[in-house]
Amino acid sequence: MFHKFEPDHYYTNIGTYPPVLHIASGDIVETRTVDARGGDCERTMVAGRPNPQTGPFYVEGAEPGDTLAVTFEKIEPSRTYGFTRPWLAPNVLDPEAVGGIPDETGILEWEIDPVARTATAVLPEECPALVVRINPMLGCFGVAPAGGQAISCATSGPFGGNMDFNGFVEGVTVYLPVAEPGALFFLGDGHAAQGDGEIVGTGIEISMNVRFRLDLHKGWAINWPRAIDTDRIMTVGNARPLGQALQHATTEMLRWLTGELALPAAFAHALLGQCVRYHIGNVYDPAYTVVCCVSKRDLPDAAVGCLPMA
Amino acid sequence: MFHKFEPDHYYTNIGTYPPVLHIASGDIVETRTVDARGGDCERTMVAGRPNPQTGPFYVEGAEPGDTLAVTFEKIEPSRTYGFTRPWLAPNVLDPEAVGGIPDETGILEWEIDPVARTATAVLPEECPALVVRINPMLGCFGVAPAGGQAISCATSGPFGGNMDFNGFVEGVTVYLPVAEPGALFFLGDGHAAQGDGEIVGTGIEISMNVRFRLDLHKGWAINWPRAIDTDRIMTVGNARPLGQALQHATTEMLRWLTGELALPAAFAHALLGQCVRYHIGNVYDPAYTVVCCVSKRDLPDAAVGCLPMA
Amino acid sequence: MFHKFEPDHYYTNIGTYPPVLHIASGDIVETRTVDARGGDCERTMVAGRPNPQTGPFYVEGAEPGDTLAVTFEKIEPSRTYGFTRPWLAPNVLDPEAVGGIPDETGILEWEIDPVARTATAVLPEECPALVVRINPMLGCFGVAPAGGQAISCATSGPFGGNMDFNGFVEGVTVYLPVAEPGALFFLGDGHAAQGDGEIVGTGIEISMNVRFRLDLHKGWAINWPRAIDTDRIMTVGNARPLGQALQHATTEMLRWLTGELALPAAFAHALLGQCVRYHIGNVYDPAYTVVCCVSKRDLPDAAVGCLPMA
Amino acid sequence: MFHKFEPDHYYTNIGTYPPVLHIASGDIVETRTVDARGGDCERTMVAGRPNPQTGPFYVEGAEPGDTLAVTFEKIEPSRTYGFTRPWLAPNVLDPEAVGGIPDETGILEWEIDPVARTATAVLPEECPALVVRINPMLGCFGVAPAGGQAISCATSGPFGGNMDFNGFVEGVTVYLPVAEPGALFFLGDGHAAQGDGEIVGTGIEISMNVRFRLDLHKGWAINWPRAIDTDRIMTVGNARPLGQALQHATTEMLRWLTGELALPAAFAHALLGQCVRYHIGNVYDPAYTVVCCVSKRDLPDAAVGCLPMA
Repeated sequence: MFHKFEPDHYYTNIGTYPPVLHIASGDIVETRTVDARGGDCERTMVAGRPNPQTGPFYVEGAEPGDTLAVTFEKIEPSRTYGFTRPWLAPNVLDPEAVGGIPDETGILEWEIDPVARTATAVLPEECPALVVRINPMLGCFGVAPAGGQAISCATSGPFGGNMDFNGFVEGVTVYLPVAEPGALFFLGDGHAAQGDGEIVGTGIEISMNVRFRLDLHKGWAINWPRAIDTDRIMTVGNARPLGQALQHATTEMLRWLTGELALPAAFAHALLGQCVRYHIGNVYDPAYTVVCCVSKRDLPDAAVGCLPMA
Repeated sequence: MFHKFEPDHYYTNIGTYPPVLHIASGDIVETRTVDARGGDCERTMVAGRPNPQTGPFYVEGAEPGDTLAVTFEKIEPSRTYGFTRPWLAPNVLDPEAVGGIPDETGILEWEIDPVARTATAVLPEECPALVVRINPMLGCFGVAPAGGQAISCATSGPFGGNMDFNGFVEGVTVYLPVAEPGALFFLGDGHAAQGDGEIVGTGIEISMNVRFRLDLHKGWAINWPRAIDTDRIMTVGNARPLGQALQHATTEMLRWLTGELALPAAFAHALLGQCVRYHIGNVYDPAYTVVCCVSKRDLPDAAVGCLPMA
Repeated sequence: MFHKFEPDHYYTNIGTYPPVLHIASGDIVETRTVDARGGDCERTMVAGRPNPQTGPFYVEGAEPGDTLAVTFEKIEPSRTYGFTRPWLAPNVLDPEAVGGIPDETGILEWEIDPVARTATAVLPEECPALVVRINPMLGCFGVAPAGGQAISCATSGPFGGNMDFNGFVEGVTVYLPVAEPGALFFLGDGHAAQGDGEIVGTGIEISMNVRFRLDLHKGWAINWPRAIDTDRIMTVGNARPLGQALQHATTEMLRWLTGELALPAAFAHALLGQCVRYHIGNVYDPAYTVVCCVSKRDLPDAAVGCLPMA
Repeated sequence: MFHKFEPDHYYTNIGTYPPVLHIASGDIVETRTVDARGGDCERTMVAGRPNPQTGPFYVEGAEPGDTLAVTFEKIEPSRTYGFTRPWLAPNVLDPEAVGGIPDETGILEWEIDPVARTATAVLPEECPALVVRINPMLGCFGVAPAGGQAISCATSGPFGGNMDFNGFVEGVTVYLPVAEPGALFFLGDGHAAQGDGEIVGTGIEISMNVRFRLDLHKGWAINWPRAIDTDRIMTVGNARPLGQALQHATTEMLRWLTGELALPAAFAHALLGQCVRYHIGNVYDPAYTVVCCVSKRDLPDAAVGCLPMA
């Protein structure tokens, strides 16, 4: 079933809040998200900070111990104005170098060209042109965390949240561990583009039109977000420090390979050792994000055949 | 000038040791390296652990404050037998999951096919075939560190060392900060292939035939290793924890962009924020390695024109 | 005014929940807390995990930007049975050593002697006697965090929470930053004793009788918990990794010295450099806790005179 | 046998350098150390940075696998002038707060009163008096590291080095793992006093007169430095990040308790959980230092009886 949902309120925590829509597994939702500071497609401020979320969407039948698959069918900027923080965050530089960062606040504006699919920074005159290809993604989405917690959209955890990974784009399916009845799916914080690590503290923040499908996997329990795109399978660890995020992601990938994909331990360890790829989602938020990737090409056909279709 | 150098002894520290050869800037050297445990191309053990190095090569005129450019013209396995550690290192998994790693030592053997350019793991029968494309690289190379130190080839620092980055392959030029007269360049620890992070504690360890060129950049001082390949410029941070390695790499890239490449600070920060890519060299050695990359396509032409040719 | 409050429900998150009692600044409350797993003074399980909290107590007039002072007048075990986890947590040992920890769960029981003020472990026969002096403390207490969040009592933050610091004992006054109207003070997780770092994952968990006073400091905004006892002033940082917890605590102490205590920067830096003492609250919970201490003896009299009385 | 040794050269690395004196186990040496920048008792600069060391002293019969016990019988400032860095190091503050540290270099001078046993800071006029009790200690000492390495006196490792722990004072015995023939003991970097963590980057740096005894324990192998003073036994971890230093120290203490002291594992874990104390040596040097302490009072008499006398 297809739902078109027009949000009229937003949450800046991810938690057990009243659902805005009840849907069934397999349903598709088309909706809007506002930017990280609450600006909508007309730049009207309609919500507060940080990273106000559209939702939550209640999936009938979802219970703790299930997994919710989110397939992003479309993630498209709904305006041409984006913004970033202009300076590197202090925590990504050597402590001795922090004093050299300009002590100005303010934002840097970007102009999106939806046809050329580029974003151009509005920089001071003395600067060369800075034009980057857009790569629309969602920085923050997730399901209600366990135990009735309500967690700020500034951060992330096993439930997803503010992961700020530039691989969460159109076409990817992300798997989230259901911790509360109905799963309660939230989404927001669109970025027209973002470098690895989100090291200025933002991507190119923008409102989005998003179409996504939710599929419920009953009785499939995972510990951390997982994802599949055309080429690879991925697991996500969210924590500080960076090394702990990597531990979570690696442990979850090992579980996937030796668990659901039924690969012998000796094979799984050898494969990871020589074929794993890591990506850094963010090194800015309270919890950092590391993504552990294995190419489908490196997996035996039988294992690829075990992967969920969505 | 071209030198063919046949090593007859090796060092397991990088330090101010007597040079094996004096060469001039621009000279090319063809030589051999042994594997991480000291095995040569015939699997004869000719050196000790860890990561015995060929060299050091003394570059005439090199002094502290200069930079040494190392261009790897050839990195080619000199035998068909490789080996890896078979199990993930405890530090890359959640502490609670470490107990589940098999408590066996030993090695996993790999057979290299130099024509197909693949490596095949010799796994127990119950395992599917594991065949990976080779990507020959050097795990450990560097110049003598400052102050007469002698640092184990198990680890790395501003001088290079055991960085275990799978992007240090044929065709790349790596820049190293000269800290002692003659620079004293060492190399070894070849890997036929290696996953990100070297998370089993090894790549596919193998002896290599290596041809490299050394170019001296007088009066150009850098703080951390840098590199250039066909597509991108790179800076390297070596430290624990992982976040500190990332800080070193990012700080060094910012210095490069706003220093030698003369880009305005506002441009450099904005570029890094939306275009930076990070790679994890290793998360196994005493010092971890993070590589900060910027695509040449994202740099203004004038900046690309400022890059050294070698 | 004095309130005797008998709890009949408990929260395992700290958040904006309906208050159990409204009190005025300066009021004193006598109440009970259950142990970390929900056991009361008769070992009846009356609440769930983790660290169920008594409260919240609403302080009339408290608003964001104020500070709530909590003075623990009494923290007294309300039974003689305590328990701990029996084995060191995997994360406090070298990853290579984790495999050697016994793979058993279960608990270790302790018998409290309220007259001798000791706790005796019920260990296997082959063990020597293990008798420790009790030092009753509260592991987890705090005020509602900002923005309507509800944070698990497993962890901690600027609002307090599961700090597990063995210096939070009878006689200490702790200052907490008010983030929601009424402050909403929670308390629980009593420990009859606890080593530094809570490295087995528990103190000697026990139910408590607690008497505390709440004093509201209008318009005094702090960033992290602070505390004063007979001898010293303290600031608390809660975060992972351990070094970040130390950064938060040190930064907050510098603010206190150069802010409220009006000490010149040169003096404050020199004092901290040569006189600071650090204590490790916990290295087990999702957020670790470091406490930064300055002895009152090392402060100028004028500064001591500026300290709040409660 | 007693040796009075007058140094005439110093090393700024700890490594396998020619010994200045050969001594026997049980011998006592009286000597001098210069300050961290090479200034002697008359403030004449006689050595370079960092932390120039007196020694090395070769202990007859010492071989890898032995342990060297160093008992500091006297550590006494040899002049009245001390100095510190004046400002907190950037890495001990929140990254966002670093910009607020004064951007001045220079040093802060201190005047030692050897009778009152105090040090008084020479602060700007607007500052209150800052007088601290002296607690003379050695920041940097150790034995040659393994494998012929030469490690800068800026940092530390299993061999000791720049641990900057304010508990290494007169009366303590420190145990160091011998890695090279003769052990090769170095010492230097005296501090008249130092706060926990050495958070300004120095203690009160001063030259010292030191008398120490070296005792060789043949065939006793340890992994990290250990120490015993009047009240407690201690193990030392040197690493970054801080949590890893704590892991090393805790693992070494567990080895001591369940190894040499023959305590049952269940007892050792329970004891550590409820009785351990941690101290932070330094959070400034490339390797941080954490000390894990157990009070002798908490050990069974039989275990105390097993402790070495020196």
